[in-house]
Amino acid sequence: MEQWSLRAAIEGYAAHQIKGISIWRDKLADCGLKDAITLLKEYDMSVTGLCRGGMFTATTQQRRDLAIDENKRALDEAAAINANCLIMVCGGLPGESKNIKEARRQIEDGLASILPHARSVGVPIAIEPLHPMTAADRACINTLEHALDLCDILGEGVGVAVDVYHVWWDPKLESQISRAGDRILGFHLSDWLVPTNDLVWDRGMMGDGVIDIPQIRNWVEASGYRGFNEVEIFSKQNWWKQDPNVVIETCIERYDKFV
Amino acid sequence: MEQWSLRAAIEGYAAHQIKGISIWRDKLADCGLKDAITLLKEYDMSVTGLCRGGMFTATTQQRRDLAIDENKRALDEAAAINANCLIMVCGGLPGESKNIKEARRQIEDGLASILPHARSVGVPIAIEPLHPMTAADRACINTLEHALDLCDILGEGVGVAVDVYHVWWDPKLESQISRAGDRILGFHLSDWLVPTNDLVWDRGMMGDGVIDIPQIRNWVEASGYRGFNEVEIFSKQNWWKQDPNVVIETCIERYDKFV
Repeated sequence: MEQWSLRAAIEGYAAHQIKGISIWRDKLADCGLKDAITLLKEYDMSVTGLCRGGMFTATTQQRRDLAIDENKRALDEAAAINANCLIMVCGGLPGESKNIKEARRQIEDGLASILPHARSVGVPIAIEPLHPMTAADRACINTLEHALDLCDILGEGVGVAVDVYHVWWDPKLESQISRAGDRILGFHLSDWLVPTNDLVWDRGMMGDGVIDIPQIRNWVEASGYRGFNEVEIFSKQNWWKQDPNVVIETCIERYDKFV
Repeated sequence: MEQWSLRAAIEGYAAHQIKGISIWRDKLADCGLKDAITLLKEYDMSVTGLCRGGMFTATTQQRRDLAIDENKRALDEAAAINANCLIMVCGGLPGESKNIKEARRQIEDGLASILPHARSVGVPIAIEPLHPMTAADRACINTLEHALDLCDILGEGVGVAVDVYHVWWDPKLESQISRAGDRILGFHLSDWLVPTNDLVWDRGMMGDGVIDIPQIRNWVEASGYRGFNEVEIFSKQNWWKQDPNVVIETCIERYDKFV
């Protein structure tokens, strides 16, 4: 919840009987790792994932190395708060580059570089395929199929996060979710609004858009997923401007109807 | 060119030694079919495609039948102006539907229904996969792979239009262009801007964005395509507000550098 500090979010979620939270690193830094651990324990709150690692693409090897170091620190934090996974937003085209193949190579390299550390601290890496409209500036991994191809190459310790907002349109979604099997590490919910006025910050509340969420949920559960179903609504103009408690109440009400 | 009538466009393109034009049906209607035919002949202008057929998805069978009738009329027009193909924007989710599988079934049905007419008037149907961000409201065919799967099912008389704007992000683009072979009926050019401020009307001039157009062109030509390379820049806030002759001159200059 953008409006809340991590402390306020943990307390607020707990007050609404929500048992899990996805934590963003900036909020974690504001709170402090030690206080965060104490709060999570006090409220018996599971951490579905730490957001986010990734951003492996850069114009120089030096910068790519810095990104790898940063990802290792993120893995350490994820381990410290016992996060179920580290969510990867892999990175877009670096600088003025038009070479998406090279960007994807950098992503694969970056993931391979941090994987031994991920395994050693016991935190699975969740590659999140992002909507193709974000390929230029956020992530060049844009289909579940592509993310799973990477998982196949990288091996143990790597899985995927399925966000309905990013993948709902994909004609191969059902087959790829089935292929994913126990590699699904997170399942994220929101809705696709018509019209959509911003490529990143205009997500809808479940029920306000066109995504058949129960259908995708069925596929994800049929694949064996038993983790949290996580609401994630980037909404600068609407939900992020509202009273967080009203947002949570709305999420719960909509979850019962539309998830 | 949005700013021009069909007559002005044919005359304007000819003045810049452009030999081909893609014609939109509303502009054709404004001009009148008979005058359009005369003009095209007078200026020896090839018609790369008629835009557009499709929009097969609807909430009732009656409306879907009307769409099929409309597509047959579009095919007749395409035949009359000797268009190389009828471009298909297949249609999004109808009404309040969240059933993208059903929408795709309706699209397949619609294409199958008009195919005998297309064959009899000798106009190939070009399925244009549209960017996934348009799946809800414009077209549920969103990858070249999916479009080619449809071509495989439908058989002779159906091909694809490859628009770099819609497909540049696709990790399977190279392999699917190769698979397409002689079924590529059109090749459309523009560029993906960073940031992109509108999901439809904010396309960039070649060179102003991140698409590696020469790479995609190489793949398309390696597949055997020898048709026109067609500039198509939907740009309500920029290029559509400028002097059309300046736009054309810019297109020609950028084409030489970035295509």
